Order: sequence, then structure tokens, then C-alpha cells
Amino acid sequence: MTAGLTGVSVSAMPLAARMPGLRPSEIRKALMTWGRPGLISLAAGIPAADSFPADRLREAFNQVLRDEPTLFLQYGRTEGYQPLREYLADRVRRVGLDCAPDQVLITNGAQQGLDLASRLLLNEGDHVAVESPTYAGALETFRQYQAGFTVIPADDQGLRPDVLEGELRRDRAPGGPGRIKLLYVMPNFANPSGLTMSLERRRAVAEVAARFQLPVLEDDAYGELRYQGTQLPSLAALHPDAVVIYLGSLSKVLSPGLRVGWMVTPAALVEPLQSLKERSDLHSATGVQMAIMQVVADGFLDGHVRQLVGLYRARRDAMLDEIAGCFPRAVRSIRPDGGFYVWCTLPPAVDASALLGAAAERHVVFVPGRDFHPAGGANSMRLTFSGLAPELLREGVRRLAPVLRQALSADTQEGT
Amino acid sequence: MTAGLTGVSVSAMPLAARMPGLRPSEIRKALMTWGRPGLISLAAGIPAADSFPADRLREAFNQVLRDEPTLFLQYGRTEGYQPLREYLADRVRRVGLDCAPDQVLITNGAQQGLDLASRLLLNEGDHVAVESPTYAGALETFRQYQAGFTVIPADDQGLRPDVLEGELRRDRAPGGPGRIKLLYVMPNFANPSGLTMSLERRRAVAEVAARFQLPVLEDDAYGELRYQGTQLPSLAALHPDAVVIYLGSLSKVLSPGLRVGWMVTPAALVEPLQSLKERSDLHSATGVQMAIMQVVADGFLDGHVRQLVGLYRARRDAMLDEIAGCFPRAVRSIRPDGGFYVWCTLPPAVDASALLGAAAERHVVFVPGRDFHPAGGANSMRLTFSGLAPELLREGVRRLAPVLRQALSADTQEGT
Repeated sequence: MTAGLTGVSVSAMPLAARMPGLRPSEIRKALMTWGRPGLISLAAGIPAADSFPADRLREAFNQVLRDEPTLFLQYGRTEGYQPLREYLADRVRRVGLDCAPDQVLITNGAQQGLDLASRLLLNEGDHVAVESPTYAGALETFRQYQAGFTVIPADDQGLRPDVLEGELRRDRAPGGPGRIKLLYVMPNFANPSGLTMSLERRRAVAEVAARFQLPVLEDDAYGELRYQGTQLPSLAALHPDAVVIYLGSLSKVLSPGLRVGWMVTPAALVEPLQSLKERSDLHSATGVQMAIMQVVADGFLDGHVRQLVGLYRARRDAMLDEIAGCFPRAVRSIRPDGGFYVWCTLPPAVDASALLGAAAERHVVFVPGRDFHPAGGANSMRLTFSGLAPELLREGVRRLAPVLRQALSADTQEGT
Repeated sequence: MTAGLTGVSVSAMPLAARMPGLRPSEIRKALMTWGRPGLISLAAGIPAADSFPADRLREAFNQVLRDEPTLFLQYGRTEGYQPLREYLADRVRRVGLDCAPDQVLITNGAQQGLDLASRLLLNEGDHVAVESPTYAGALETFRQYQAGFTVIPADDQGLRPDVLEGELRRDRAPGGPGRIKLLYVMPNFANPSGLTMSLERRRAVAEVAARFQLPVLEDDAYGELRYQGTQLPSLAALHPDAVVIYLGSLSKVLSPGLRVGWMVTPAALVEPLQSLKERSDLHSATGVQMAIMQVVADGFLDGHVRQLVGLYRARRDAMLDEIAGCFPRAVRSIRPDGGFYVWCTLPPAVDASALLGAAAERHVVFVPGRDFHPAGGANSMRLTFSGLAPELLREGVRRLAPVLRQALSADTQEGT
């Protein structure tokens, strides 16, 4: 091993202050168990692989690389491939967004949108207002910029605007900390809770955010995958003075491996966000964007999403049905209107991460809930229904059931 | 335009403290002039488009997407596609690096390596030791993390280790600021200076860095494109205690639009850097890495690089020859052993950016040197020879010559 790469001296090397605050990712660990023979993973939040339009994409790559090799292979535009920006600007009209293509910035998945928005807005010590639970990858991204969290509780209608308003009032009062800089929400089928904000709540939250000039980071990675009810508008469409950065993704409706998402931003933030994107990685791979555009140009995505909705609805229903049939009643689960996840809450004294060993013995894995909470929340777990056929989902739930029963029975005995 | 996207309120919204420190990028502006009819761009540092192995890549995309669609399209590994990591771990042996494939992290070009290494190491107020001029994109990436700069002068052998040692001694002395946290160097055909560090200098710099436990970020984006002399080892190979993060890129030898680069890191930094990569964008597009691996697996890159070296050497020689023939003698230029750039220094009173207008009138553009310096340096400019055929390069230089003559004559008159 080469001298400068042995790391002999690294332990003495000071890393940036942000580094010790970062937790290892349970989700990445979970992803890495995917495909292990005999294991049923209810952990990895991945799309159904057999739904990927591989042949269409193969033809598309072939065609764009034949017809426009230089555009595909040369340095490209930081802001993204223009036809795809136009397509996406048009598509987000469905959630009430009326933006110019110039307000669309192509990113490497919605994850990069989280990173860029954080870098744009957060100083060390700033707080992000979040629900708890919320997307673990977002919490870790905010932590990279040394942000803390102000938890805003949610009920079955979504985040509570009255509590948000109270927190902002205290925060912005004379002598108050003035540290709440951003609201992060996933209004549709949130990862991990599965909850959807009602229209009334969206309006109320947008109004509070506008009144307090609190920027909103709206993560809509799952928005197109709705299995019941009607599509609701983006918060950006609901108040004239709200400042909203909207994140979209093709990962769940086309392919996550292509790593293409997008941000829709207020016009004044276009230039600073492009500037941060340039410093991050210059631009996203142009050829991938061209191939995607080739695939979606004829309206393909609408029919494809309809198929996905049918597929995932059946998986959701299978998982919920099996849960209802065999989980202990003290385990509460949420029925999601869309997305990939069923969130389960266990009695307060039960630590879900302590059940991973017993689950592994039965060849089933899930993500314990702790990582989705800024603090606490060990008595929860996330189950995913997107990646497996109904019979495997049912079998996975059946394998988990005795693990839960035993934990709850131990919990009850301890309580007596 | 939708409510929340009008940006009405954005001007009142506080951005992070890092944002005002970021400059708009002259290089991006220069790239955007590329391809304008009649304009000769000596500005954009882009590879020769007709050298891209488009057909091989097209076949490769077709094959991997046919043979392994799920691997291509599903979520992938944060650290990168394993066969490509193995290939790159092997390839860097040529510069003396002896690393395990696990020490290779695939990034979106070397630019993302700069970003991740900065995020790993830099706190607000830390200094990066740099040459001046140095890569503008690196300076801006460090500025994102609110770093300052300690300039270490270079001579024709490269960065001066005696000055580096003096700065570190002062910095680390009792009561000293203790703020120099990183050394950034591009030892081969640096962008923009074209300078190459001699072997002796590499040894001396590695020794000083090791003695002071100063991590080195070694950017080798151009290393394979050497037109004369012999390849020199990475700093990581030259001292047993140096801590070196090495950045490589396929942008200059295969295609920049694919956005694939890599980091080779000390073993102890693998996990924290993967963690930062995950928070940035989960992973780089797997299919692109697979297609690249398909292209390079049979040794293609060696012959391809030999062709590129011949192509670019002829372009360098044409540009240098024309410069010798028609630039005023008071304009000093550096003959690079490789890479893409010829760096020119004008008399101290001449601001190169003030010449852009006159150059544009003659339909030629270059990058003024200021952005490559932490401070000062207005009397310099970067010319690029990589993207154009020799006759166009000669014509571009001939168009610039009268602009320079006029500026120098005005300068002389002002001086008398």
C-alpha cells in the first residue's frame, strides 16, 4: 500500500467540525442487504426493477448517442438539458406550479436538491423545522451543514400550522434565537410516515411560512405515485408570498440508477443554485438527460405511471392486509395514500433496532425508525412494499409477526 | 407565474453566509460562448469533440443495458461500480499509487472530489495553501466552505516547499493562527499555468506536508495527457507519512459529459467520504460507469490516450508557434508539457479582462486570469488549445495579437 494512502497519520488529522455529527446510514446498510438469497427485505425503499422501461431506454441511449454524440459526450450546461427542463416545467403544472423552464435546475436525484438548498440557506446553528419522523437522508443532509432541528408535530392531516406559527413567533420575537431558517416538508406520502397533508393544511402552512418569510423546501419525490384520492397542489401554488423550493425526481417513476431529479425555484434563486451546482459537479450527465427526454417526449410517462400505480397499490394492499391479519394490535400502522412505505409504531418501551437480530434469524429485514427522528423514536419501524411481489411481502410480514409478538410480550412482562 | 415561485419575497430572505463570497464563474460564461458562429474560443477548456469514442460508447450502453438492465437502472452503490473501482485502482499504479479498490470512490468528475474533500476537511475560516494562479473551480469550491487562502509561490519547478514550510511554521507556532488545513496542488500541467512539479519538488513538498501533518489534495485531472518528458509519481507515493487525497477524471481522456471521476483516499477516509457522497447525491449513475467499464476493459484507453497525446501535442505546438511569431515580446507565455492550457502574463498595469471587448470585436475570446488567483492577477490570461484544429488556433492567436499590441502600447504611453 502506498505511503500517502496508508492512513497512518489520518487519525491525528482534524476533520471538519461537521463530520462527527454525521451518523452512519441505516438506509445504506439496508440497501446493501438487497438481493441476499433467502432474505426478504422490507427495508430498501427501491422501485420494482421489473417495471423499468429498459428496452425503451436502451433504444433511446442508442438513438441520442448516434444522432448527437457531441452533445451527449462534451461538457454540458450546469442548469441541465433544455428540452428536459421544458418538459418538467410543463409537467409540474399538474401540481399547480406555473414556472418558466429557466426555473428548473436538473440535479442528481432529489437528494442533490436537498444538498444544494441546504448549502444555499443554512449556517451552522440554524434550525430546520421538520416533522418527526421525516426523511432520514434529509436530516443527515441538514446535519452536514451543522443545522439543528425544531420538531413540528403532525396529525393525520399533516404538519400542524398552529405549532409552526407558535415556534416561529418565539423564534423571531425580540431576544428570540432567530434560528429557524427553513421548513422541510414532504406533503405527499411522506417517507417514512406515508402521511399526506390535506389541502387545508397546505394552505395554512403556506400562509404561516409566507407571513414569517420562512423558505419552504418541498420534497415531492413520491408525488406521482398516488393509489387513492386526488392529487393536491404544491404549497408553492397556495400563497402569493410563500418562498418555496420544490424538489422532484424521476427515481420512483422511471429509474433511480439514472440519478435525475430537479428543483423548481423562485426566479431569484436560480443563479445562486446554479452556482452551487457548478461547484458541486459542474453539471449532471447530459446524455442521460437526453435519453430520458427521448423516452418521455411522446407522453410515455403518463401510461407508465398508471401501470406503476396499479402495481404498487396491489403491493400496498397486500402488505396492509397481512399486517392487519398477523401483527399484534399494539403495533399501530398507517395506511398510505401513495408512495412506498408503511410506518409502524410500537409501544414506547420497545426499541425496534433491538429486533433486527431476531428478524435476521427469520430472514427478514426492515429499517428501524430512529434515523427518521431528530431525536428519540426508537419504538418505530419502516416497512417498504415497493420492491417485492405481494406474496413475498406477505411472507415478510408473517416472518416479522412473531418477532413483534415476542418483543411486545417481553415488554408487557417487564411492565408487570 | 405561481405564487410561491415569483421570488417576490426572496430579496428579503437571508441566504447562508457562504453565498455572498461566491463569484460568478468566468469559465462558465466562457463555455457558453462555445460554438457561436464565427467566434474562435480560446477560452473553453474542453476536449476535442471529434476524439470522443462515440461508437464504442454507443455499443457499450446498448450491451450493458441489454445484459444487465436492473444493475443499470436500479439504485446502486454509493462507492461506485465495483469493476470500475478495480480498474482504476489498477490504473493508478502508473503514478505509484498502490491502493485497494475499496479506496477508490467514484465521483461526478474530479469537481465533485474537490467538493467532498472540502466538506470533509474545511471549517469556516480555515485556509487552503494554494499556488497562484490555480484552478478557479477549486478556489470557488473552497470558498463555498468559507475557507481563505495562503498563497505559496511557485517557480518553474513548481510550488516552493521552503515557503510552504515557513508558512506552516508560523501558522502552527504557539499563538499562531493554526488555520492552514489543506494543501491543494495540481502537479501535472496545472490548470491554468501549465506548470509541472519536478520529482525533487514533489518529494520535498510531500516531506513538508507529512512533517506538518497537512493533508494534500492532489488534483491530477490532466495527468495522462503528457506531450513530452516522462510521467512522474503522485505525491502520495513519495513519503510514508503524507496524507494525500488523489483526484482523477475520465473527462479529459474519454468524455466530460459522462461526468465520471474518482478519488483515491487513505483507508481511514473511505467511510467519511462515502458518507458525504451519499448525502450529496446517493451515488453516481451506475449505467454510465458500466458503459465506461465495457469500453475500457480490453485496454482501449491506452491506445486512445496515445492518439489524444498526438492530437493535442500538435495543437499545443501550433498555438505556441503562432504566439512566438505574433504576440508582443512583453507578453510572457509558458510552454506546458501536457494538458490543455497556455498561460500568458501581461505587463503589470494591463488588465486582461479589459481586453475582452476588443477581442470580441475580432471574434476571439479567452479567459482573463483574475479568477485563477485568490487575489490580484488581473494582468494574465488563459488560452486553451484543446478544442480547436491547429489552423483555427493560429487564427485565434493572430486575432488576439493586435489587441495585445494596442493594450501594451497604451500601457507604455501611460508609463512615459
